[in-house]
Amino acid sequence: MTYCIGVLLDGGLVMLSDSRTNAGVDQINSFRKMTVFERTGDRVMVLLSAGNLAITQSVVALLRRRLDAEDGTSNLMGVSSMYDAALCLGEALRQVHTREARALKDHGVEFNASFILGGQILGEQPRLFCHYAAGNFVEACTDTPYFQIGESKYGKPIIDRVIQRHSSLSEAAKCVLISMDSTIRSNLSVGLPLDLAVIERDRLQLAQQHRIDADNEYFQMLRARWGQAMRQAFADLPDPPFIGGPLVG
Amino acid sequence: MTYCIGVLLDGGLVMLSDSRTNAGVDQINSFRKMTVFERTGDRVMVLLSAGNLAITQSVVALLRRRLDAEDGTSNLMGVSSMYDAALCLGEALRQVHTREARALKDHGVEFNASFILGGQILGEQPRLFCHYAAGNFVEACTDTPYFQIGESKYGKPIIDRVIQRHSSLSEAAKCVLISMDSTIRSNLSVGLPLDLAVIERDRLQLAQQHRIDADNEYFQMLRARWGQAMRQAFADLPDPPFIGGPLVG
Repeated sequence: MTYCIGVLLDGGLVMLSDSRTNAGVDQINSFRKMTVFERTGDRVMVLLSAGNLAITQSVVALLRRRLDAEDGTSNLMGVSSMYDAALCLGEALRQVHTREARALKDHGVEFNASFILGGQILGEQPRLFCHYAAGNFVEACTDTPYFQIGESKYGKPIIDRVIQRHSSLSEAAKCVLISMDSTIRSNLSVGLPLDLAVIERDRLQLAQQHRIDADNEYFQMLRARWGQAMRQAFADLPDPPFIGGPLVG
Repeated sequence: MTYCIGVLLDGGLVMLSDSRTNAGVDQINSFRKMTVFERTGDRVMVLLSAGNLAITQSVVALLRRRLDAEDGTSNLMGVSSMYDAALCLGEALRQVHTREARALKDHGVEFNASFILGGQILGEQPRLFCHYAAGNFVEACTDTPYFQIGESKYGKPIIDRVIQRHSSLSEAAKCVLISMDSTIRSNLSVGLPLDLAVIERDRLQLAQQHRIDADNEYFQMLRARWGQAMRQAFADLPDPPFIGGPLVG
């Protein structure tokens, strides 16, 4: 499994991925699920992937190989908008599907892949997309400024309660790390280390990229203090007045 | 969808269910998913159900019809242990499967049902079971003192952080209501009103049963204050020190 989240804010983008992959419970590995495409001053994109690793790696390999292509429309460095970049990713995914899907089906393996693509190209606002296995995609809007892929449910409530379009990049980074912590605690197939990337609006260069492992002091502090804060908030709430009252019936 | 949770504590059992059922998004109804079997001073059981409503209602109808049966082993009022009650439920589920599964399959409908059965019979401790569609079941133990069925993920983190075997019935009731709130916020197919039942150890009679709707003042207060507490706890945590620092590369 996997948990990745991308958040679109007024001030830019925050992208976070875990790194655990598994084929059954007895074959667990760590693979980076974040890929950066960048040309300083012109464009910066971060791609997060979930699903079958053989498929998602093939898609990324295809996108990389095309970086030198002369045809701008199939080249993340040549496209002139993030929408075209999203089309380009969808097309690469469909090409891998054409090549792989039949053989996978013969072996009973689902063609399972999803992506979050966030970034900014000179002349545009930062934009955020989410791609499904069919190569189709949706774009984040003001109402829902984030996308999750993989094991998304455990970590969703805190995102919904906290993240707004005008949240700061720091707040969003803190929030996605708490969301990831909740997910890691509940699903063994999501695990450290994490990759965190921050794209500041109009900087057109990756502002921050961090690998966060079990030794990361900030993440350790966040996990411990968030757990304490939850328990304290819970203790501070009054007990139901109707427990311990008169019997029913 | 559905969300039900049963918690086994040193002091008894707390059981909570929502009441929303849906067949598609344009056919949404409210059905009670909690059934009580009780003979004061001898036994009390609470059954929670999730899955296909036609199946779960049939299972409950079968269990009710057998209450008058002379054969004690297929009768929740005749069995001498909660383990036998769990067998009895599993057997009823298999009988419904035998009657229904073929026809459902012909119509492309999955045989989907799960149950949580909690209770106490005179001479035993309170016990808690979770049944799968095949009629097999597991029993809660000290390590994991709760079961969830239906849409379980959104509301799991708070349970894991707070509930312990020695938690009080009131604490557990407060916690499952917060867990339900997180689930209702994230999944439209889980909804009010809620049914909450409390079984006090050795009382052998339902201590409390409450229907909680949107007007319930305690639940309203809990939802509002928990959300505030989350946001405050989040605001109190320091921002990541590595955001806004020097550029990467």
